[in-house]
Order: sequence, then structure tokens, then C-alpha cells
Amino acid sequence: MADHGVIIDVNAGESSTEGDSGIENGKNDTRSERDTVDSSPKQVHFDGDIYAQKSTQESDATVNEEKLLLAGTLVLDAKRGRNMEFKTDHNHVKAYILYHKFYLRWLLYFFIIIDLALALVEHPAVPGWLAPYWATMIVEGLCMAYFTFRICHCAYVTNKFWKDTKNIMVIGCIVLTMLDIICFIVWQNLVTPPTRAIRWSRSLRPFFIVNFSDGKQIRRAFRNIRRTVPDILNVLVLFILSVFLFALLALKLFYKRKNLVYPNGDAYFKNYFDCVWDLYVLVTTANNPDVMMPAYDYNNFFAVFFIIYLIICLYIFMSIVLAAIYNNYKKNLKNEVRMSVYGKRRRLAKAFELLKVRQSGEYVITKACWIKLMGIVLPTKSAAHLEVMMRVLDVGGNQCIRKKHFMGLADLLQVELSEVKDRQTLIEKYFPKVYNAYASVMLKMVVRHKFFRYSFDFLIFVNAFFIAFDIDDADWFFLSMFMAEIILKLYTFGAKEFFLRFWNIFDFFVIAACVIASAVEVIIGASSDEFRTLDVLLVLRVMRLIKLFGSIQRFKVIIMTIVNIGPSILTYGGVILVFYYFYAIIGMEIFNNKIQYFGYNESMQLENHRYCGNPALKGSLFYKSQYCSNNFNDLLKSIVLLFELTVVNQWHVLTSGFVLVTNKAARIYFFLFHLTCVVLVLNIFTAFILEAFILEYSLQKVPKLESQVEAKIKEMGLGIGSKKPNKTTSTSVDSLELVENEVPPDRREDDKENDSDTDSIPDMSQETGLKFHLKKKSRKKVEVLLMQMFEGEIEDDDEGPELDEEYFSTRRPTLESVT
Amino acid sequence: MADHGVIIDVNAGESSTEGDSGIENGKNDTRSERDTVDSSPKQVHFDGDIYAQKSTQESDATVNEEKLLLAGTLVLDAKRGRNMEFKTDHNHVKAYILYHKFYLRWLLYFFIIIDLALALVEHPAVPGWLAPYWATMIVEGLCMAYFTFRICHCAYVTNKFWKDTKNIMVIGCIVLTMLDIICFIVWQNLVTPPTRAIRWSRSLRPFFIVNFSDGKQIRRAFRNIRRTVPDILNVLVLFILSVFLFALLALKLFYKRKNLVYPNGDAYFKNYFDCVWDLYVLVTTANNPDVMMPAYDYNNFFAVFFIIYLIICLYIFMSIVLAAIYNNYKKNLKNEVRMSVYGKRRRLAKAFELLKVRQSGEYVITKACWIKLMGIVLPTKSAAHLEVMMRVLDVGGNQCIRKKHFMGLADLLQVELSEVKDRQTLIEKYFPKVYNAYASVMLKMVVRHKFFRYSFDFLIFVNAFFIAFDIDDADWFFLSMFMAEIILKLYTFGAKEFFLRFWNIFDFFVIAACVIASAVEVIIGASSDEFRTLDVLLVLRVMRLIKLFGSIQRFKVIIMTIVNIGPSILTYGGVILVFYYFYAIIGMEIFNNKIQYFGYNESMQLENHRYCGNPALKGSLFYKSQYCSNNFNDLLKSIVLLFELTVVNQWHVLTSGFVLVTNKAARIYFFLFHLTCVVLVLNIFTAFILEAFILEYSLQKVPKLESQVEAKIKEMGLGIGSKKPNKTTSTSVDSLELVENEVPPDRREDDKENDSDTDSIPDMSQETGLKFHLKKKSRKKVEVLLMQMFEGEIEDDDEGPELDEEYFSTRRPTLESVT
Repeated sequence: MADHGVIIDVNAGESSTEGDSGIENGKNDTRSERDTVDSSPKQVHFDGDIYAQKSTQESDATVNEEKLLLAGTLVLDAKRGRNMEFKTDHNHVKAYILYHKFYLRWLLYFFIIIDLALALVEHPAVPGWLAPYWATMIVEGLCMAYFTFRICHCAYVTNKFWKDTKNIMVIGCIVLTMLDIICFIVWQNLVTPPTRAIRWSRSLRPFFIVNFSDGKQIRRAFRNIRRTVPDILNVLVLFILSVFLFALLALKLFYKRKNLVYPNGDAYFKNYFDCVWDLYVLVTTANNPDVMMPAYDYNNFFAVFFIIYLIICLYIFMSIVLAAIYNNYKKNLKNEVRMSVYGKRRRLAKAFELLKVRQSGEYVITKACWIKLMGIVLPTKSAAHLEVMMRVLDVGGNQCIRKKHFMGLADLLQVELSEVKDRQTLIEKYFPKVYNAYASVMLKMVVRHKFFRYSFDFLIFVNAFFIAFDIDDADWFFLSMFMAEIILKLYTFGAKEFFLRFWNIFDFFVIAACVIASAVEVIIGASSDEFRTLDVLLVLRVMRLIKLFGSIQRFKVIIMTIVNIGPSILTYGGVILVFYYFYAIIGMEIFNNKIQYFGYNESMQLENHRYCGNPALKGSLFYKSQYCSNNFNDLLKSIVLLFELTVVNQWHVLTSGFVLVTNKAARIYFFLFHLTCVVLVLNIFTAFILEAFILEYSLQKVPKLESQVEAKIKEMGLGIGSKKPNKTTSTSVDSLELVENEVPPDRREDDKENDSDTDSIPDMSQETGLKFHLKKKSRKKVEVLLMQMFEGEIEDDDEGPELDEEYFSTRRPTLESVT
Repeated sequence: MADHGVIIDVNAGESSTEGDSGIENGKNDTRSERDTVDSSPKQVHFDGDIYAQKSTQESDATVNEEKLLLAGTLVLDAKRGRNMEFKTDHNHVKAYILYHKFYLRWLLYFFIIIDLALALVEHPAVPGWLAPYWATMIVEGLCMAYFTFRICHCAYVTNKFWKDTKNIMVIGCIVLTMLDIICFIVWQNLVTPPTRAIRWSRSLRPFFIVNFSDGKQIRRAFRNIRRTVPDILNVLVLFILSVFLFALLALKLFYKRKNLVYPNGDAYFKNYFDCVWDLYVLVTTANNPDVMMPAYDYNNFFAVFFIIYLIICLYIFMSIVLAAIYNNYKKNLKNEVRMSVYGKRRRLAKAFELLKVRQSGEYVITKACWIKLMGIVLPTKSAAHLEVMMRVLDVGGNQCIRKKHFMGLADLLQVELSEVKDRQTLIEKYFPKVYNAYASVMLKMVVRHKFFRYSFDFLIFVNAFFIAFDIDDADWFFLSMFMAEIILKLYTFGAKEFFLRFWNIFDFFVIAACVIASAVEVIIGASSDEFRTLDVLLVLRVMRLIKLFGSIQRFKVIIMTIVNIGPSILTYGGVILVFYYFYAIIGMEIFNNKIQYFGYNESMQLENHRYCGNPALKGSLFYKSQYCSNNFNDLLKSIVLLFELTVVNQWHVLTSGFVLVTNKAARIYFFLFHLTCVVLVLNIFTAFILEAFILEYSLQKVPKLESQVEAKIKEMGLGIGSKKPNKTTSTSVDSLELVENEVPPDRREDDKENDSDTDSIPDMSQETGLKFHLKKKSRKKVEVLLMQMFEGEIEDDDEGPELDEEYFSTRRPTLESVT
């Protein structure tokens, strides 16, 4: 910390300066600190005086109003990681703030979902859901209208509108969609005889998800994919060339052997393109070992060819594809994080520049200004709350924030701050006598005892065993036991605390659902086949076994990892949905109603219902495997089919079915789907999991990774769990146990050390009633973790090169070239 | 470099010291350096004198003889990365040297191969290869005898024999094998009626590969697997538990729906263990979407269950398994490399301690001693060769090696040293007139021109096209063209240079094979079906297309990566072979002759040959898919079957076949194989490729990664390609082109910079006729790369904690705990 002799600024009073330097040097002197903290309310009062003094200079204040709004917006942007460039005059800033209002954003999401959902009721609709085409078009028109409004709004506030490809993409999509609608209406009404026109623009719909600047996560994932493609293209091309090469060999080896046929009589490696196709399918392992068997039966040594092919093309090449993708993913991720750290810093620096005041020889932000700024950034928070935050940032202790510490503001805003809660349960409040009676206290002790938990864990296990071996008799016993457990827990811990824990909420809803389901079953009458679905709810109880796993320390790391990367997995869910929707729309246009499901009982069917409604499928493997439900007849069926293709197995059989009802060109569709969704997206997903897992795992081992701000908060004794007094209250024993359960052993020791230090550190929480909620919550997002990890690598005062994002997206720099 | 004022040692003459300090200071003065180098022969002479002086102290020399031998052995160990502890007295050292003699090692490999190959001729033998059991037993006895000899030899030289588990394993295996042989003989001769006893010890054979200390790479891979298992066990257990949980759900969802059956009429999720099995198979994707179709046809929303299951268990869990394995692999790899670097340093330090002499206030190794040492380490190399090496290590330039530089000896020995070759071709030598005639020179110019290469590359492409579309007519044209190409190249470059390049050798053998095959075809008479196999050779020409890919810069990185990691991939080939052999032996004992291949023409078969010789298979999917060749009837067939199981697809059908001919317990065999070979070994293989690829890729981008020694050699102008004079000779133009082709562009610039510096650096190669061969060869092994990468992280003088390997293998330290 800097040593800053005499402070000559007139705004800050002498006494305030004294008190603050007390805090600064207080690390060595425990007593003087306590005194300083006690003098804090006086300071607040004093600051009020300063503000009163300032308000006399009214003309300056109005100028500041605009600056403050801009600075506040910049800080908010930094906090939320937005990277949109906007015009900085007052009106545009207001419009920009409006642009980011949650209701406009949620309206956008709503319209995007409506637009996407239209495919459910448009022509190849889910049976019974078909809407008249004019209705869907009106809805789509409405969506486009809102999208247009949104993009115009964006164009108004941003100053680099036309440089951003995503805006152009959105405009293009809107224009094309409108064109398509007009064409379609004209076609439908004028062309005779009436034929269906193709609504090709529907496949553009997912682009709205990707390109609207609000779908940040998904756009980032897509950017990652876009940047990875050129780098892995070499590997893919080489891989495809190898397949071509091996196909040549296979052709030469097998095509002149007359007696080689597949079991169903199909030709075996008889022309070059079939060779290529068969070998490509073999790389996906889908036709192994069938494709090998005829040659293997003919001469055992032909197996060598297939083994060598699989080793080279499957094991080596596919691993290298994964390696190349992983390598690029890591590189791009680092750059992304670096960019967002730079963006954050640049915004904070700009905000600082706007608000800075010269004080004692350096530029700072005064407390008055800070409170006004926070009035914009955190309008709902109390003054005490802002006071605590100020204290964290005001490292020098002279009622102002220096640039170095102001730069930590975004991190500070990420940390959740919560007031210390009233821990009395309702029953305790209203019936204290009953609640504190001897029997009640004993009961609570029993419930809190670990054997209570163990015994119910055991009961869950026994229940699972009963379900597995289909013993229904004890169902009601288990149900009532679990209900009793929940009621007892509710009584002991109180509703507030009970519902803080995920597993309790889970238990509550599962058991409640079971009770209701069982009741319904009893009332309506059991064992009707329809109502077996309710069994699922009974089985959901078994899901509580996961809770059992979760309580074992060794599994906790893994489960926590899965839970933590959950939100990011959803992002990839979005990415895959974009791809699915795109391919589903195309698939529905090409293969709609070519294959239908009518069951497989040929003797009872109408002539034109046999063989999935298409005689071309007679005797095919597709029909024999009873795959007729796998068709493109509506959006939901298409998505299930595409999921099956993503899982890869039997995709060649599915393809063969659609080839039979159309022609061999259909293979291109399935090949492209495999290449994009399986080879590319799935590998990027694997790369993501690899990186996230390794990150989470190394964080579990290295518990020290915290931002400076978090360290500062802990140091000031403001973190939850670092305070002793609570231990004496009745409920805190359990709450502490929970906390300790969640931290790994080595971490726990740290906390204990911290506890012993608490006395010597000013405890802000006593006067303000506030505590920073420092637990896992702020760490949950992988993104935040990444930021913190890489932030250490960037110099504190490095705001990055003065270049906009375009530069980075065109040059695609490696980490080496940036540093 | 140290500044070492006056040298007071009496052994080194005054003039020698003068000359050497000249070299040391010479970096600033280019002229004086050249002088110094010119004085080098004098120094050699002078050293001879020193040696003569030394030889008077004969008694010391004999003592040194033993020390020298020990030191030489230690240096050789350091070079080869051996980590065996041996007794250090003279006799034991001699025995130790004998132990590592190449012929004893190769004899060991020979006996191991023989022992493994016995399975080919033992009871479930390859048809027609069955040997009488006494013959195989005699051979196996011989193998065991040699193994016993080897292990006794090991016990004699090493001092920690019983602490090493691998030795105990080997002894155990030998004892068990001998026991098994005796039991078998007794059983065969005494038990009536004669039944076959089980030769259970055969499954122990692959342990000899793993546990003999000579199979270092494979043992390391196994150690890696062994250490990874405990860490990923948690993930695996959690995964299996999830499968159990979902099986419960599936059971509840489906078991009471009467009309749900598989297409072939099999029960659908009817008991718990079948549920678990079906869902486990689904995680391997092998029965997707078949397992879903009945439920999906019944109610479309059941698809949700399968989709959620696959997302959780396949996409998330399997990625996490890979992540956990990769994470552990990296960790273990770092520790392994760290251990071997420590081992190397400790050996070199020990060797230095043995040979050191006090000279001018510090311990050094004298030149005389160095030459003697090298006489043991590199007995075949010339004096000039040793002189050059001495020069590299003798940084101070005073005819002795300090410890700091001696520690680089192992690296130096890794660098290949080759004499500058006579670049005249044979024809040039014997027919200079013809060779240097105008026509010949023109011809050579044409051949050297890049368009010559391009045109033949094009020809290869055209040839591939002809083959793809089965146009046989031009075969002879292409063949003669390619022959002409080879002859012209041989004429121009000479045989020596021609065969230096891999692609030339490849070309030569492919074309030669084609010519021979074509000739045979013509003589015997073509188009006989048998002789279509010769087509393969014609197609091998197409393999030259790879050469085409390889000449494109963007593919070069990938191909080089594949080539570089090739040897390590072989290690994993060895690992998988161990697993295959183990499972194959067990499989042969259990499933031998249960399924046989008799073709599928039921009407023409004998009664007991139908349905693969087993009526249980009638109507099964196994039989319908014509999988009867996939059986355990001999070692080769077993290995092919296990490979098919490794590829995973249809493994449940293969399993179902063997379940039908035995019982459901057979699933355990297949399940265990999948778990060990696919989930474990294949993921470790993927982790290896990931790491190797990322390593190679980052090395391509960062060309500076060189050991100190290599840098030193370059600095002295001793690297090949860093010298100008050769450019003037006729052949060097091409050779330089070759070199330039092999280095990436940024590297090439370095070389050019180096070239311009060459004049100012003493060029040793002119006087000695030697050059260090610094090209890719020394970099090819991933292991060496790794060593160099991590060596930077370890302090120069850090020889590691004074603990043996046992400590590390029991404690399994992370990198954090070591540092």
C-alpha cells in the first residue's frame, strides 16, 4: 500500500484523514483498528457535509449528471461483460440503457422462441397442431417487426453498426424472411394447380438466436466454432483424403471377387463411391464389423486391411481431430477471456476518467461521486451496503477511490452481498414455549444428529432395492417415512433454512409429487396402464440416491463439477439446438412424409400403409429394424431423429432408409450432418468439458484462487463463515456444518486460521448488519472462474492494445502474438 | 561464464592455458578465435604429453580402471535412461554391463515372442498348426529357463532386487507356469477318462512383456494406467451407479407395459439386470436407437427418457472420464519425466564424483580421463570425434570439463554425430567424363527442377484416378514412367543420397514390387482370382499420394506429427497386445469351439454344421448377421474378435451370441473387456495423442526449444546446414533444398541468420571433417521432447530428493508436492 504523507485536499476533513490512516496502519495494531471502526458512523455524517458543500456548485452537478449516467452505464457493462460500443452523448446513453432493459430483452427472447416454435404448427406440423398458413405468417410478421425494432434501436445507440457482421446477418435474415413470406403468399394464391411452395427462409430462424447480441454465450460458442474450423480443416481434409485412398485400395482388393456379397445380397465394394461411403461409415464405427465379415469369411487375412484402416482413420485421425479442436479451443478461450478482461478494464478506466477529481496530487473518485454512481449501478441497495463496498475499494482509507482500486469494481459487483438473516423459525417465534420444551429440544437433537441422516439414507437405499425387485407392498411405508423426515426437518430447521439447501427442495418436491400421485392413483383406481406413468414419480424418490452419492466426499468433487459446468452445458445445448433446427427444417422439406409410421403388422394394414407407407422400403434393413418412427414428418420427430444421428450408431441404416425413398444424394445431407454435429460440435463439447473439468479439478486442489477483492473482503472479516459469534446461536451449528461440508479439508484449515485472526480485524458486519456472501455462488460460473484464472496472467494496468474486436476476429492472434 | 584468473594446476601446461583462455574471450574478437582453432592440433599433441606424464602413475591408473568402468556405465545408463540400481564393485559392474549387452536383451525378446507365439500352436490352435503338447511344453520350459537365467542375472547385479515388485512378479509367473506345466502333464497322463486340463498359466505370459525391466516403454505405460485407475475409479463408480439408477427408472417405466417387445420378440426391460445391461450397452451407443424404438413407437415422449440418459451418461460422464484420465495422464507424465531427469542427473553426478580431479580450485574431469571414459562409452568413435565433443563440453576452454557442463553429457550423446560424407556418386567417380558431359548436366538440371517433381506428382494423381475408375489399359505406361523416374533420380543424386530420403525408399520398393508382381502376373497368366492380390501392390503406388499430401505445407505439420508420435503409438500397440493376449487366452478357454464357421448355406450343410455348429444360435441376430467367423477358436481369430469389441459397434450382438451358447454370465467377460480396453486403455491412448499432438504443435510454432548442448553446437558452427562452403559443390544445392523443405519458414530464417554468423565463429568441421547431425532425428522421440520441455522447469543443479523410485511409486506425488 502506498505511503502518502500529508493530504492537502480541502474537501476531506482533517479528522477523517486521521481515522483512515489509522485503518491503513492498523494491521499491526489491533486496538486502534477497533477504535477506527467505531468512528465510522461519524465519517458517514461527515461525508454528508461534503455532499452539502458540493451541492452549492449546482451547475457542475448537472454536467456531472450526464457523465454519471455514462459512467454508471460503463460500470454496468463492465459488470455484465457487455462489449457493445455505444454513442456517448446523453440521449444515446439513455437509449442504450433502455436497449438493455430486461423487459425488452425478455421480449426479444419471447419472440425468438415464438418464431422458432412456429415450425411446430407450420405445414409438416405435429399431428393435430396444424395452423392455417396465414395465421403463422401473421405471427412471423410480428416477430420480424419486433426484430426490426430491436435492430433499429441497436443501430441508433451503437456507433459501429455496419462494421458488425452480426447486425448485417440479422438484417439479411429479416429481409429474406419477409421476401419468402411474400413469395409464398403470391405462390399460394396465384399458381394453379395449387402446389406447396418451399418456405426456405425457415432454416434462417436459428440465426436470430446466434446473431442477436443478447445471446452472448451462444454467440461466443459459435465464434469459437467459426475460429476453430479453419485450423482443423487441414486435419479433416487429410482425413477425407485418407478415406479416399483406402477406398481405392478396398476397390482393388474386393471388387473383382464375384462371390463377395453382404448377407442381404447387396453388392460388396462394387463401385468407388460406395467404397468411400462404406469406409466413411466404418470410421464412425456404425457398420463394424458387418462391412468386414464377407471379406473376413472369404479370407481371414483381409481383416488386416480393416484393422489398419480403423487404427489410422479412427483411432489416430479422430484423436488428432479432437486434439486439434481442443488445442484451438484452449487458444480461443484464452483470447476470448483476454478480450473480455480488456473490455472490462477499458470500460472501468473510461468511467474513472469521467468521474475523476484531482486530490492530493493524484486522480481519485470522491465518496460523494461514488454514492451517486452507485445510485445508478445499484439503485436498490441501502446506504450501508454502499458504505461497505466503499470501504472495500477505499484501500488508502481517505474517503476516495484510486484508479487502481476502482478497476476492481466489476469483481466486487460480482460478489453477492446479503444481509445477516434472522435465523428464528416461525414456530420458535410464535410458540416459543412448545418449541423450547424438553421433548422438542430432544427431538431437534435427534434430527440434527448425523445418525438421523444416515438412517434415512439407508432407508432410501432399501427403497431402491424394493423398487428394483418390484416389491410394491412397502410403498406406503416408505412414503410416510419420507414425509415424516421432511416434516421433522422443517420443524427443526425452520422453512427458511430448510429451503436453502438444494437437496431439501428436491426431497420436498419429489415426496410431495409422490403423495399427490399416489392419492390420485388410489382415487381413480390403480394399475390402469395409463397411470403407470405415475410410477415415475415414485421412482423419482430413487433419484434421492444421488443425494447419497453426493454426501460421499470422493464423489462430491465430480458432482460439484457437473453441477458447476451445468449452465455452460446449456449453452452447448443452445448451439446444438441451432444446428438441429437448421437441419430439421431442411430435412422436413426434403423427406417430409416419405416415411410414415403405421405399425408393423402387415396382415392387418391397408395396402398403402405397408412398409412404412412406402413400398421402396420393402425388405430393407430400415423396415426390418422397425425404424419407421424415425422420420422427418414434424419438428419433434425430426429432432429425435437428429439426436439419434448424433449418437451415430445405426446412422447408416437410417440413411439407407431415406436413400431408398429418395436417391443416393440423400447421403450428402446425412454426411454433412455427421461432419458438423458429430465431428465438429461434439468434439468442441468434449474439449469444453475437458477444459472445464481440469479447471474445476485444479481449483479444488488449489483453494487460494481468489480475486484481490475477495481477499480484501475476507481480510476485513466480511465473508460469511469467517465470524465466530454466530456459533453460539442454536441453528448455526448445522449451518456451519453445511459450510464445512462444502469446503475441501485443506480449505477448512484456512478458515480456521481466519477465525483466529478475526479478533484483530475490524468487523464491519456488526455495525452494518451486512455480510458479503462469499460462498460458492459467485464461483459457479465457469466464465467467472476463467476470468480470474487468466486475469493473473495479464498485467494489472494493461488495458490491452487500443483496437476494437474486429482486429482480433480478423487476425485471430495466438497468445504469443498478443504478449 | 566464470572468470578464473590464474590457473595453478601443474598438469596443464602454460601454453595450453593461454590458448584456451583465448577461446573463452574470443567471442568478442573474431580473428583471435580463428587463430585459436588453428592451434588446435598442437593442443592435441600437447594432451598426448599429459597422458604420457600421467601414465607414469601406473598404480593410480589401475584403480581408475575400475572407477572408469563404473563411471562409463553410469554415463551409458544416463544416456539410455536406464534406472536400475546396481552394485558398484568391479565384478558386479562387469556383470551389469553384460546384463545390458544387446544380444542378451534380444535373446530375451526372442524368448518372450516365442513364449507368446506358443498360443498359436497350442490346443485351440490355428487350423493345421497344432503341435503335440509335449513339444510346446519343452519350448515353454526353455523360455522359462532363459527367463530364470535373466532374473538370476538381474538379482546378482542389482542391490534392491526384492524391493522391486516387477522382479517378484516375474518370479511368480515363472513358478506358476512351471507348476501349471507339471499339473497339466500329471493330469494328462493319470486322469481317466482323459479330459483336457486348463492351461490357466498361459494368461500370465503377457506379464513377462510388462515386467521384464527391458520393456521400459510398455512398463511405463502400464505404470501410468495403474496410477490413473485409482483416480478415475470415483468417476467410474459414479457412472455405474447412475446406470443402475436409470435402470430402476426404466424398469418402472416399461416393465408393466405388456405390448412392448423388441422386433424379434425379445422381452423389453423385463428384469432389473437386463435393464442395467441394456442401458450399459446404450452408453456404448451400440444398441441405439433399437433399444428406444419400441417405447418410442408406443409413446413419442418416452424418447425424452433415452435422450436425457444419453446426455448424462454418454456425453457428460464419458467426457468426464476422458477429462479425468487426461488430467491424470498429464500429471503422471510430468512426474515420470521429472523422475528420469533426476535419475539421469544423479548418474552423471555420480560419474563425475568418481572421476573428478582438483584443478585450479575446483573439481573437473581432465581431458585424459575424458578420453578414457569415452573409450568405454563410445568405443567405436574416432579421436577426432571425441575431440569435438570435448570442445563442446569444455566451455571454459582449459582442457577440462566442469561438473556443470559434464551434466550435459547425456544430451550431447543423444545428438547424432556424423562425418561429412563424400558426396560423389559412383558414376561420377568411375565415369566422370560421361557424367559431366553437357547432355548429362542438362539432364541432371531437368531432374533437379521442381517441375520434374510436379509433373510426376501429377502423374501419380492421374494414376490414382485411373485405378478408381478401373481403367487397366495404362498400367504399363504408368509403371514404366515411374521406373524411369527412379532411375533418373538414382543417376542424378547417386544411390547414397537417394536412399537417404524416406519417400525415395518408399517409391523404390513400391515400384520394384509392382514390377515384380506384374512380371509374375504376365508369366503365370493374369486375372486368376487368386492373383488379384497382386493388385494390392499396384495400388500401393497410390499410397504415393500420401507423398503428394506430404509436400503440401499445411498438411506437413499433421503428417510430421503422426510420423513423430508413431513409435509411441507402437508402445500403446504393445499395451493393447498385452490386454488382448490376456483376454484371448481366457476367451479361448471359455468359448473355444462353441461357435464355428461353416458358411451360411443351410440347405447344403450337415445337420451339426448348421447355425455355426450350435443349434442355440438358430434364429439369433448373431447368426443372421453372419458373425460366425467371430469366435475364440484360435489366437488370431480371438484377436480379431477382440479388436471388433474394441471398436465397440455391435459388441452386444457378439456378446449375445456367446451368451446363447453359454449363459448370461458370459456378459461379465465382455463387460470387463469393454471397461478395461475401451473405457480405460483407449481413453489413455486418446490422452496420449492429445498431449503428443499439442506438444508437437506448440513445438512447430516455437522453434527455439533446444537443449543447451544443441545451442552450443550450433553456436560453434558444427550443425549440419549451418555452413556455407558446401553450397558451392554440385550436390549440396539439392541437399540444402531438402533441409529447407523440412524446417518451417520461421525456422529457416534462423538458419539463415546463423549462416551469416558462421564466419565469426570457429568452424571446427573444417579441421575434423565432422559435423553434428542436428536435424530432426534427435527430436523424433516424443520422450526426448518431453525431457527437454520439462527440463527447463527443473533447476540446473537440482538432482531431486535422495529417494529411490519406490518412494514415488508408493506416494504418487503430485507435482505440487514434489516442488
